[in-house]
Amino acid sequence: MAIELKNLTKRSEDYSKWYNELVVKADLAEQSDVRGCMVIKPYGYAIWEKMQKVLDDMFKETGVQNAYFPLLIPKSFLSREAEHVEGFAKECAVVTHYRLKTNETHDGVIVDPAAKLEEELIIRPTSETIIWNTYKNWINSYRDLPILCNQWCNVMRWEMRTRLFLRTSEFLWQEGHTAHATREEAEKRAKLMLKIYAKFAEEYMAVPVIQGVKSETERFAGALDTYTIEAMMQDGKALQSGTSHFLGQNFGKAFDVQFLNKENKPEYAWATSWGVSTRLMGALIMTHSDDNGLVLPPALAPIQVVIIPIGKSDQMPMLDEKAAEIVESLKTLGVSVKYDNADNKRPGFKFADYELKGVPVRLVLGARDLEKGLVEVMRRDTLEKENVSIEGIAEYIKNLLNDIQKNIYKKAVDYRDAHIYECDNYEEFKEKVKNGGFFLCHWDGTEETEAKIKEDTQATIRCVPYMYEQTPGTDMVSGKPAKHRVLIARAY
Amino acid sequence: MAIELKNLTKRSEDYSKWYNELVVKADLAEQSDVRGCMVIKPYGYAIWEKMQKVLDDMFKETGVQNAYFPLLIPKSFLSREAEHVEGFAKECAVVTHYRLKTNETHDGVIVDPAAKLEEELIIRPTSETIIWNTYKNWINSYRDLPILCNQWCNVMRWEMRTRLFLRTSEFLWQEGHTAHATREEAEKRAKLMLKIYAKFAEEYMAVPVIQGVKSETERFAGALDTYTIEAMMQDGKALQSGTSHFLGQNFGKAFDVQFLNKENKPEYAWATSWGVSTRLMGALIMTHSDDNGLVLPPALAPIQVVIIPIGKSDQMPMLDEKAAEIVESLKTLGVSVKYDNADNKRPGFKFADYELKGVPVRLVLGARDLEKGLVEVMRRDTLEKENVSIEGIAEYIKNLLNDIQKNIYKKAVDYRDAHIYECDNYEEFKEKVKNGGFFLCHWDGTEETEAKIKEDTQATIRCVPYMYEQTPGTDMVSGKPAKHRVLIARAY
Repeated sequence: MAIELKNLTKRSEDYSKWYNELVVKADLAEQSDVRGCMVIKPYGYAIWEKMQKVLDDMFKETGVQNAYFPLLIPKSFLSREAEHVEGFAKECAVVTHYRLKTNETHDGVIVDPAAKLEEELIIRPTSETIIWNTYKNWINSYRDLPILCNQWCNVMRWEMRTRLFLRTSEFLWQEGHTAHATREEAEKRAKLMLKIYAKFAEEYMAVPVIQGVKSETERFAGALDTYTIEAMMQDGKALQSGTSHFLGQNFGKAFDVQFLNKENKPEYAWATSWGVSTRLMGALIMTHSDDNGLVLPPALAPIQVVIIPIGKSDQMPMLDEKAAEIVESLKTLGVSVKYDNADNKRPGFKFADYELKGVPVRLVLGARDLEKGLVEVMRRDTLEKENVSIEGIAEYIKNLLNDIQKNIYKKAVDYRDAHIYECDNYEEFKEKVKNGGFFLCHWDGTEETEAKIKEDTQATIRCVPYMYEQTPGTDMVSGKPAKHRVLIARAY
Repeated sequence: MAIELKNLTKRSEDYSKWYNELVVKADLAEQSDVRGCMVIKPYGYAIWEKMQKVLDDMFKETGVQNAYFPLLIPKSFLSREAEHVEGFAKECAVVTHYRLKTNETHDGVIVDPAAKLEEELIIRPTSETIIWNTYKNWINSYRDLPILCNQWCNVMRWEMRTRLFLRTSEFLWQEGHTAHATREEAEKRAKLMLKIYAKFAEEYMAVPVIQGVKSETERFAGALDTYTIEAMMQDGKALQSGTSHFLGQNFGKAFDVQFLNKENKPEYAWATSWGVSTRLMGALIMTHSDDNGLVLPPALAPIQVVIIPIGKSDQMPMLDEKAAEIVESLKTLGVSVKYDNADNKRPGFKFADYELKGVPVRLVLGARDLEKGLVEVMRRDTLEKENVSIEGIAEYIKNLLNDIQKNIYKKAVDYRDAHIYECDNYEEFKEKVKNGGFFLCHWDGTEETEAKIKEDTQATIRCVPYMYEQTPGTDMVSGKPAKHRVLIARAY
């Protein structure tokens, strides 16, 4: 088994294969027998739960409340908003019947043709339509606004080529949908949620992100503006990690959601929507992990510390006792810890397994070290080991966890910054983009240029980034004047 | 608005109407435009979230881990377990296509006939089949057991007649699915989960329940034994509030899940499944609430205390300041509190609204009372008011919340116990059961008797209860010998 665990493809050999193997070997998720749908295994789900908890608290601090809206959407709802239907009414799961019956040979079931729905229902690919259809009844006056609802749920978009966490037909996410009395308030909310996503990515996932606004082509179907956070994976590709949309009055108008403003005049409500999904798991994995397996940020690791005893069987009671003390002192400091004294697995197997699973800190309790009052501490991010005094070990580890969190973030920032290039020459760009990386290039703002770049290189405009000083210049493709630089990259 | 709030049908007039109105007026949930699917509104969802948190912690304490399995189930999976298909393959939502396309007149979308699935997919009505199909790959040896997974998710059972929370086509629930190496261990787990449900119902929901085992007719489709908790609603009807199933090796065999036991011999795995759903919201409402609205147990109330100031506008700064102190001291004791000084609603409206919403304790801060160092405290369960010294008010309220929790539980127990009857005469039973209540009657154990009772009275055997001393006797219907008494009632 130890050999099998170590048998992980190297990133330098085949990054994509490494990712696929790691997700399965680290017990995060696996393909199900239902096309494109994944099973999220307990270890993977425990990370997702930690993400949910942090995000949920952050949302609620800004006044957001959770609610739940129907899974199924009447087909006709999708057609109400013209752009939305183009984007979402295509590849989706359609419910046409509501009953099965036993077949003639009594060894199986068939769809009952008599139980055909009058109007087909769609499994939600996103919920703007059903939610705005509901908001119509909730909103009469400016006093009913803002409405700040979020739901944690499953959604479905029929995908032909799927990859665990990155692109699956069914995935889990949260979708926030807010309604406001003014354009300004809605725009402010859309930007606020992007900031929250960026803060979460950087402070908890330790994933640095570039915040910006999407080009018209890359916008959410039905939005006036889509704000995005873009992260760089270890192969230099971009991963869109969260988006927040300013929807203007598009859904207000499509679903006739009007309110009486302070002057007692009817107005259409202003909307935002924003979401992050189990795709974040992919970003987490591809930012930090290495050839030995996962590297998890302590802030999101289900197990922050594992303690493994090594000794002869007569030494075990003493080791168990010492371990219990350490476990207790760590728990007091709020550190999650697992003591693994299972005797049916060798220490070497355990070492490899917890490395693979990305547990940030490993303690080895050896009988001989213990006599000297020492314990071996290994940090997963650098794989460095040292012998540390058992006196005050809990505080030592608490600090070490903070160090690891900071260190992997810094490492990711350094990597990202070393692979961002300002580029003014299209030939150079085409050559360089093959190796990945983020490119800051002047763009003339036309769809033609955007399409040409995509066709030539598969790279897309990820966003107009906020964080870089913007100067006008010349579009590297068309030679026309450009207002600013945009971020271009190949993306997941 | 105040009038509209108070305009709740009385329970004595029409219990069913009272319930339907209350769910909507108290902002718990509403019907959506999708047949049979509800919208759970933020206030209702906040109660459900509290339930989830408590239950989730209780599950995890027993070693259960959360995971996530696909929403869609291949039609053929349902046929694998013979009894299961009878119970669940009937009224369910069937996905037959995976794409829509624009219609000919370009003003809507139609199902693309070219995008027909080879095998239809069912939206999960429950997940035994898809999960056991997955477990097959997880289980090789007794060392891989037990597996203790739970998922919080949505499920769908096509219902013709729906009622908010009690019976909806889509509902939210948790479903636990465990796999074990021995029959004993599986049976123990099934019983353990029932105990957890009973503890949760009684200690948190303040809903007394009767634990027992279902008759064969009322068992879960595919189970060898179904354990249940049954609660009595205010109209004397039973509400099945949670079930735990011992599934034997039925699913192990149906999905060929074998493991090598300690003697290295192949054996089929033993299974349990157990679940509670948003139906618990119905139990909560119909156990405690009154003609003024909801009565919520403090342990699950999203807002435990509301503070409302009454004063002239020049007195408000002083009231705000005093309220801030009280809020702070309550928060320190872990009490959730809302200060409502909104000036666009009258105090009378606020009083009615928070009564309707079941907030357990209301404080009224009046300028004159404050001068005397007093505050008016009202408890929602009895509607009793008293003036209490502001000194030590937080501790006073903390104790009061405990009192309320105990009091509403006791009230529910007393009501239930006053409406349980031992009955040995079928004519008497038929007359009495019309008015509701639980009946303990001797049963000969035959399906015929069970069916006759149901046909004559609509009442069903809820369970063979654990808690009552059981003596043999004579079946009240057939006159045949009966091993024990069963619990019979009309049910939701």
